[in-house]
Amino acid sequence: MAAQDNGIQLMNPEQLSVELIEAQYALKDTKGKSNAKSVLILVSGIELAGKGEAVKQLREWVDPRYLRVKADAPQTFNHKQTFWQPYARFMPAEGQIMVMFGNWYSDLLTTSMHVSKPIDETMFDDYVERMRAYEQDLKNNNVDVIKVWFDLSWKSLQKRLDDMDPGEVRWHKLHGLDWRSKKQYDSLQKLRQRFTDDWEIIDCENEAERDQQFAQYILQTLKHCPEHQSKAKGRWKQAKVPDSLLTPAEAPLEKEADKDELKQLSKKVAEALRFDSRNVVLAFEGMDAAGKGGAIKRIVKKLDPREYEIYTISAPENYELSRPYLWRFWNKIQPEEKITIFDRTWYGRVLVERIEGFASERQWQRAYEEINRFEKDLYGSQTIVVKFWLAISKDEQEARFKAREETPHKRFKITQEDWRNRERWEDYLDSTADMLERTDTAYAPWHVISTNDKNTARLEVLRAILKQLKAD
Amino acid sequence: MAAQDNGIQLMNPEQLSVELIEAQYALKDTKGKSNAKSVLILVSGIELAGKGEAVKQLREWVDPRYLRVKADAPQTFNHKQTFWQPYARFMPAEGQIMVMFGNWYSDLLTTSMHVSKPIDETMFDDYVERMRAYEQDLKNNNVDVIKVWFDLSWKSLQKRLDDMDPGEVRWHKLHGLDWRSKKQYDSLQKLRQRFTDDWEIIDCENEAERDQQFAQYILQTLKHCPEHQSKAKGRWKQAKVPDSLLTPAEAPLEKEADKDELKQLSKKVAEALRFDSRNVVLAFEGMDAAGKGGAIKRIVKKLDPREYEIYTISAPENYELSRPYLWRFWNKIQPEEKITIFDRTWYGRVLVERIEGFASERQWQRAYEEINRFEKDLYGSQTIVVKFWLAISKDEQEARFKAREETPHKRFKITQEDWRNRERWEDYLDSTADMLERTDTAYAPWHVISTNDKNTARLEVLRAILKQLKAD
Repeated sequence: MAAQDNGIQLMNPEQLSVELIEAQYALKDTKGKSNAKSVLILVSGIELAGKGEAVKQLREWVDPRYLRVKADAPQTFNHKQTFWQPYARFMPAEGQIMVMFGNWYSDLLTTSMHVSKPIDETMFDDYVERMRAYEQDLKNNNVDVIKVWFDLSWKSLQKRLDDMDPGEVRWHKLHGLDWRSKKQYDSLQKLRQRFTDDWEIIDCENEAERDQQFAQYILQTLKHCPEHQSKAKGRWKQAKVPDSLLTPAEAPLEKEADKDELKQLSKKVAEALRFDSRNVVLAFEGMDAAGKGGAIKRIVKKLDPREYEIYTISAPENYELSRPYLWRFWNKIQPEEKITIFDRTWYGRVLVERIEGFASERQWQRAYEEINRFEKDLYGSQTIVVKFWLAISKDEQEARFKAREETPHKRFKITQEDWRNRERWEDYLDSTADMLERTDTAYAPWHVISTNDKNTARLEVLRAILKQLKAD
Repeated sequence: MAAQDNGIQLMNPEQLSVELIEAQYALKDTKGKSNAKSVLILVSGIELAGKGEAVKQLREWVDPRYLRVKADAPQTFNHKQTFWQPYARFMPAEGQIMVMFGNWYSDLLTTSMHVSKPIDETMFDDYVERMRAYEQDLKNNNVDVIKVWFDLSWKSLQKRLDDMDPGEVRWHKLHGLDWRSKKQYDSLQKLRQRFTDDWEIIDCENEAERDQQFAQYILQTLKHCPEHQSKAKGRWKQAKVPDSLLTPAEAPLEKEADKDELKQLSKKVAEALRFDSRNVVLAFEGMDAAGKGGAIKRIVKKLDPREYEIYTISAPENYELSRPYLWRFWNKIQPEEKITIFDRTWYGRVLVERIEGFASERQWQRAYEEINRFEKDLYGSQTIVVKFWLAISKDEQEARFKAREETPHKRFKITQEDWRNRERWEDYLDSTADMLERTDTAYAPWHVISTNDKNTARLEVLRAILKQLKAD
């Protein structure tokens, strides 16, 4: 190995390649195991610094079949899209490595440099903070995030622009910025320094060193994939189960004019949903037979089937299990979908997964904050999240289970598993109490609605939607 | 029930709803079983006939959570996209029902009515034939396809245009056609009659009858989901194993100037791939250790990592198994991806799945033609499919297995399963022979290349790519 000026020791390329491939296969081998990991590499930098070349060289050294590359031109932020939405579906599964050329940071830079009303410093720093929180959530969920900035001095950039081979231009779209302007270069450098303290910075004056520094950094990370999962913090403080869960209201609060009001409210809600400029996510949770399906049916009654999407959530598939648990929800909420309805939700993590032990203690204990961040990001992107807990008494559930068993076309709705879940009624109450206490936020409040009386419940659900749409 | 003029007997709506829900749950219940089915409903028709309303009414009668709706404005064909590509990812999984408002027929009509150089009758009929073949393949793979045309007379259409409530306009985009023009109406009717003989035609003069006819038709189909799978045709005629598989060439055909030629060829191939106006799919099959990885590495050496995508195919996931077996490949080949490389392919159906019994006899016997149609559709959409069988002798495989076991960074590449597969060497030869005989087509020929000598093999692979790109 030869010591270099900038401290990089060049490794023998064959040795480097062998070690990279070994590390790659070791990572691949973790798939499905308790130490499973995946690696997400975010790549950004100065134009012509050579990030494409460095990734190309890396892909020659590794087994290229197990290193995926996603390349998108940076885009400006869409006001109805969280920063992670364009990238969520490319999240690597356990054992995989994904390189992202376009990523949330390049979008942030592009938005700052291009938009007529640029992002101010406070907003910029707020974005960076949310991005880091998102990455920490990824790490806690076994996606290691590596960030690499390819840097180049103003002088070298000018020289490379002078020397550019027109045939190579294709891969060096300059994204509409004038790289001849020292002022633009300087402002970009100033901006990126607001977020690159936790990045690997690669000085790209020398190509061989650039490629080695990049590959060696990847190798080191692969070899020492850190254990990111934070420990559960001390003893869990169980929330008190509120009366709204213990004894849901029994008597119909009102009986008169129910039908008329229901019709009118349905229409009002449909219009409110349709003409709101924001997107709306309706999230339904509740014990079995609490009436989630009926409530949803009432809401969509006055909507056109092309206006909404309903997702019924059950146990995750294997390909979903090999990614962060929120991943399947990230991908179901789409900016172009006006109304998205969930029959059961991401709260499964702190309900059934907690109770059945599918999530470890530290996983579900960490989930409340992850979920809050998720909903806050949506809220920040013009997406209203309306959450319902439909509360039912244990007796009423039993009555409904029995009625289902006796009604031919409802028999499908009741299984042995429903009876088994019922045995864990108290556990569900405890978990729900914790959930309500920890995730009832200003930006995504819970609506706890007693459904012992179905008609009243339907009215209340509709009213709650109207109220939240108006309040926000 | 009251007999109507057009022969529809109106059912009691509650009864209809109960029967629909029962049928829906029965379908849902087939998931994962041997009689598993899904239902795809293609909906098209005259503007303002009320297809949206009919689907809305249907969704009120069924459990809306288990009837998904996909609505897209019809689009004109993109010349690099097969007709099924925009819709493939919305294919319903076992137990699911999916309604598609935008579909390949609406795209065909839109293309015919809008494009400056319209599709001539022969081309139109050719499209219809391919669409029907595709639907038959879906049916054979347990996706029932239902096609419903909502019809309306010219006179009624004019009346509805007169009466239209401007507030409702949003859902009645007229797709740029002048529905006041009798001529345009007539030509659309003439066109659609070229494909609607196997459609359910619904006369939409009367709204209540329209909704009932549609819902009853869906109900009948759900109740009597036909067994579409065609039987295996008589005795299987096993192809003779060709010498190219039995005794792959041993001696290097050439030794001189190999390295130089390899370098030059690599560069030539990269340029040919990059500058070809079409997309390219490179498909690699071969026994274990035949050198698929090495061949791919050589091809991508001169490409930028953003120019290609490599898919390494292994056993399908559950969510893939609950859809037609080609589905996961439909979704991996994307019009915007210039070069897509497969390390193992859709031929798994007639190789490992045949040999291990994962596919039934009639499934794998039917697969050859399904695969041929799939590749022909790609070819028709400016996508070149270059297929390689890398042939190796049994002795050479053993030598490579042993070498892998002895080389630290290659040990990952060899498992007990590889040794087990080796025991079925003769079965693989037979299956490969059948595959070569039945899928070596003019539009997607096989290149059988001996890889006993790795250097020669790499040259041959590169030459074959160049040859096929030039030939087409």
